[in-house]
Amino acid sequence: MTDRQTISDYFLSLQDSICARLEEADGSGKFMEDKWERPGGGGGRTRVLQDGRVIEKGGVNFSAVHGPVPRFLLPELKTKDPVSFYATGVSIVMHPHNPMVPIIHMNVRYFEINESEYWFGGGIDLTPHYVDEADAAYFHAALKDTCDRFDSSYYSEFRKWADDYFFIPHRNETRGIGGIFFDKLGPGRHSKQELFAFVKAVGETFAPLYTHFMRKNGHLPFSEREKVWQQLRRGRYVEFNLVYDKGTRFGLETSGRTESILMSLPAQAAWRYNYQPEKGSPEEKTLQLLRKGINWL
Amino acid sequence: MTDRQTISDYFLSLQDSICARLEEADGSGKFMEDKWERPGGGGGRTRVLQDGRVIEKGGVNFSAVHGPVPRFLLPELKTKDPVSFYATGVSIVMHPHNPMVPIIHMNVRYFEINESEYWFGGGIDLTPHYVDEADAAYFHAALKDTCDRFDSSYYSEFRKWADDYFFIPHRNETRGIGGIFFDKLGPGRHSKQELFAFVKAVGETFAPLYTHFMRKNGHLPFSEREKVWQQLRRGRYVEFNLVYDKGTRFGLETSGRTESILMSLPAQAAWRYNYQPEKGSPEEKTLQLLRKGINWL
Repeated sequence: MTDRQTISDYFLSLQDSICARLEEADGSGKFMEDKWERPGGGGGRTRVLQDGRVIEKGGVNFSAVHGPVPRFLLPELKTKDPVSFYATGVSIVMHPHNPMVPIIHMNVRYFEINESEYWFGGGIDLTPHYVDEADAAYFHAALKDTCDRFDSSYYSEFRKWADDYFFIPHRNETRGIGGIFFDKLGPGRHSKQELFAFVKAVGETFAPLYTHFMRKNGHLPFSEREKVWQQLRRGRYVEFNLVYDKGTRFGLETSGRTESILMSLPAQAAWRYNYQPEKGSPEEKTLQLLRKGINWL
Repeated sequence: MTDRQTISDYFLSLQDSICARLEEADGSGKFMEDKWERPGGGGGRTRVLQDGRVIEKGGVNFSAVHGPVPRFLLPELKTKDPVSFYATGVSIVMHPHNPMVPIIHMNVRYFEINESEYWFGGGIDLTPHYVDEADAAYFHAALKDTCDRFDSSYYSEFRKWADDYFFIPHRNETRGIGGIFFDKLGPGRHSKQELFAFVKAVGETFAPLYTHFMRKNGHLPFSEREKVWQQLRRGRYVEFNLVYDKGTRFGLETSGRTESILMSLPAQAAWRYNYQPEKGSPEEKTLQLLRKGINWL
């Protein structure tokens, strides 16, 4: 079954299982839950963990919303007719305490227009405060494994898409080391059932992958210097999300639930005027690796 | 004389005098200067003060840039013809250490299209972390005084404009207690000379007004609680500037100098999920006063 209800039910159960795995790996933090309703139709279940042992601030959001398409989106859909939409998905951002643990973002979503046209979208991308090339290779290998089980062209295609999407033009930097990003995955090469299976596999790749980094790097030593750098990198994360991220801007412009949308922002972030890391430092090395087109494998 | 060179020279001297007054009131911090050139034409002089005694992070920017109008702006100018533009101005944001000293923003600018059409724009607005009604009245009275010297309708018109402009729809909050905001002040009720005199007066209102608050509130006691609240309010400031501020978005989209544009961001900011201040607290009172249409006088 690949009807909207089945897909939405699956996303709800995915949210449950991911929250359980994250709490287990954190060892102390617990998710709080807010259920909300959307005035135009549908609603969601926002789960936020703050001040855990490993996670400082993170959210795992589920939503299933529907109604008439907001007017300003009609040109993007290449139609002038009034249309109805249905959208459901899970969206995650985790900001850890320890600067040696990366920030992660995951999203899986399903979209329907006029109860006929449909597509899937989603992706996972990693934003290390310090880029570790072995960790980056491990991350990309896991994503490639998941992609390769469904389509041998997915990884290289979606990896490039992530590089292009998670890019901060005004900094000429990628947000992190990329990952995979895909959108408008609809009828074509694969059946709806196959696409749904792929999106499920992406969702299920998240917990083992991120809890690996939580366990492996959550105990690494760090000093004030690494905390300062973490705050500056979080500043860039804020810049990307508020200036460029389509989901964030779409949500804010369509009067989405602000607190659910902005759960992606870190507990704190910092800005210094024209900060330049020392030559030869790990911070400078990280900056040099925030580029498109790097083959991490 | 009201030619572009005269106006630009005036703005340059305004930057000098404001920096001198701010350094004097700070008593310890010094502005550093970066001169920059714009590849398409013109350039600027960015001045930033970090880690002063009163000012934690602040910028006083001058720029004078020119060239062909970027393509995406043509619809806004209601023309399809290729046009040239000239823009010069001074832009200021100050983030103080002490949560009892407000954040301030000031901007004065002059714009020319095709060397024929011209207009002035600008304004001053205040963002207290804690709204003090007496301070707010003092601030608005000073702006009204300046406005009334030129046009008895300016204050009420430009005060409303500031309320509408410095508004965060997704929070349903104003950024602060407003002030004055004006744009496209061109030929009409007043001569170019009169408009220039008004813009000069706005620019010259800034230093006495803000140094008053630096001196009056810079020594007030505060605790960790007020610092936490300050960081959260700065988070809102970041949200406004990155999501809505036209100058910021215009600058980032036209490949302006990123470090000069984003000098407006605070040294640190914070976000908590769904933070609600205690009932009856000064924080709650401040939130209740972040509304449009309050008569502060």
